[in-house]
Amino acid sequence: MKKVIDDAANYVNQMIDGLVNAEPSLKRLPGTQVVVRAASEEKVALVSGGGSGHEPAHAGFVGYGMLDAAVSGEVFTSPTPNQVLDAIKAVDTGKGVLLVIKNYTGDVMNFEMAAELASAEGIEVEQVIVNDDVAVEDSTFTVGRRGIAGTVFVHKIAGAAAEAGRNLQQVKSIAQRVIDNVHSMGVALSPCTVPSSGQPSFELGEDEIEIGIGIHGEPGVKRMEWVSAAKIVEMLIAKIFANTPAKPGDNVAVLINGLGATPLSELYIANVSVQKMLQEKGLVVHRTLIGEYMTSLEMAGFSISVLKLDDEMSDFLDAVTTAPAW
Amino acid sequence: MKKVIDDAANYVNQMIDGLVNAEPSLKRLPGTQVVVRAASEEKVALVSGGGSGHEPAHAGFVGYGMLDAAVSGEVFTSPTPNQVLDAIKAVDTGKGVLLVIKNYTGDVMNFEMAAELASAEGIEVEQVIVNDDVAVEDSTFTVGRRGIAGTVFVHKIAGAAAEAGRNLQQVKSIAQRVIDNVHSMGVALSPCTVPSSGQPSFELGEDEIEIGIGIHGEPGVKRMEWVSAAKIVEMLIAKIFANTPAKPGDNVAVLINGLGATPLSELYIANVSVQKMLQEKGLVVHRTLIGEYMTSLEMAGFSISVLKLDDEMSDFLDAVTTAPAW
Repeated sequence: MKKVIDDAANYVNQMIDGLVNAEPSLKRLPGTQVVVRAASEEKVALVSGGGSGHEPAHAGFVGYGMLDAAVSGEVFTSPTPNQVLDAIKAVDTGKGVLLVIKNYTGDVMNFEMAAELASAEGIEVEQVIVNDDVAVEDSTFTVGRRGIAGTVFVHKIAGAAAEAGRNLQQVKSIAQRVIDNVHSMGVALSPCTVPSSGQPSFELGEDEIEIGIGIHGEPGVKRMEWVSAAKIVEMLIAKIFANTPAKPGDNVAVLINGLGATPLSELYIANVSVQKMLQEKGLVVHRTLIGEYMTSLEMAGFSISVLKLDDEMSDFLDAVTTAPAW
Repeated sequence: MKKVIDDAANYVNQMIDGLVNAEPSLKRLPGTQVVVRAASEEKVALVSGGGSGHEPAHAGFVGYGMLDAAVSGEVFTSPTPNQVLDAIKAVDTGKGVLLVIKNYTGDVMNFEMAAELASAEGIEVEQVIVNDDVAVEDSTFTVGRRGIAGTVFVHKIAGAAAEAGRNLQQVKSIAQRVIDNVHSMGVALSPCTVPSSGQPSFELGEDEIEIGIGIHGEPGVKRMEWVSAAKIVEMLIAKIFANTPAKPGDNVAVLINGLGATPLSELYIANVSVQKMLQEKGLVVHRTLIGEYMTSLEMAGFSISVLKLDDEMSDFLDAVTTAPAW
């Protein structure tokens, strides 16, 4: 294992120091692994997070128009209920807090426990669970579908709704609408190595790829010989199309998300095939995002997310945000 | 070689299609590998570019407040004089064009030839040559120091000056001032593979790193056993400090630039040591940028750039830009 690290046991702690140092709009909640906005306002607050190793998710999405707090667990490990509770208490201004949780058993359990603790202290807390990954129904880490890169659409759109003064139920409702309409699937060309283990999360042959991979290297649906970008996109989009409610003429937003080691140039190349397939299905692309939004350390590969939009979602998607990673 | 590609020979062409599709503020100059702004204005124009494989450089820096055109050669290959000439002619509005060239023999030759051709057609053209890499004096691809990630500071600051209505000589002058005050150095943890060759650009042992690497995998100054982030940063910063004119009390901007496969989390970790060393030298950090600005395909590693600022440079650095990759 070769990494740019000082001490695997101190990985997340140092990473947060390095991030908040570079971004004056963010600060660390003292004594925690929680990142919050430097300036807060009175509105419904959004808290998300999960295991680390997905940077810029989640702390890079803290900022005006998106999240109020991100809770970072150790690498690929859910944060504790206490950390989530710290985040909730730090950002609540009396208008309530929405938790955006990716569907992993540990995250769901710990965020829900934090919600109960916060409720007991009189804070109004609601939650939504993102399960956009159409690759597998149940997985190593989940009951039901996993939450992956489509989560950033929830952050963006619900974040803009909160900024626009919507109340907690309204913000929850639009967050859920995003979840119901976003579908994702990924492919890996190489594994990643969790710093504390020092070993690759799985092995792939010299010419092998894995279709339907999870963002922690959880098994996908198919291991196969390397094929062209066009063929990979075709497999991912076919499965997304089998799940999306989007029909010809509908507006969609697309996210082509790099998993860590795939050059931006190759994500652009994938986009050529993505746009072709969306066009063939008669979908109208309102916006295309390409880059690293939710990574798996230095895994090579990418995921595609397709979000069926309505007018309100489109407006919130395009609203201003200062989050560093958007 | 496993990559997200369809056809190595069509790599750059497809990449540009995928980029301009996703970014409505950009367009491709028909029949070329030149990316320009969709909306132009009457002002001094900035043209940069070079070999591809450094994405988001250079096309991702085209936009209000930065570049007017980026010329993309094949991967790690200088664009032809004709492509550069096309770019110059497309963006000149009569106020002149500044070429921002990274110091590689091919780039300097082809951009200079284009400048001569443009001058012959009555266009006023000036140029600056960026040579921020303090690792080596001469290299495989250069006479003198190489131009690497510090180039993006030139794009940003000279771009803002042009936007502010400065004339060609003034824009050239501030671009040169950035070049005189920016110093960079990088490290590689793994090589990269040019799609058309299919072979890694060089080999590194399981536990080896290379200090002073160039952005095309050109040899650095030292191949050594893997060490901690703190020790790597110490070596890079020591060489930068030996060259920078910055003295205690001076303002600086810092760029920690990922080369392609290094997770953002590890760049944040590197930043902890970078800030410590800058503070120890008594430098005042005006701004820290962390992310992938000038990559080497999927090379693992990073570079550090330190720019000594004056008030005017600080203002232009902080000015608004719409370039997708800033």
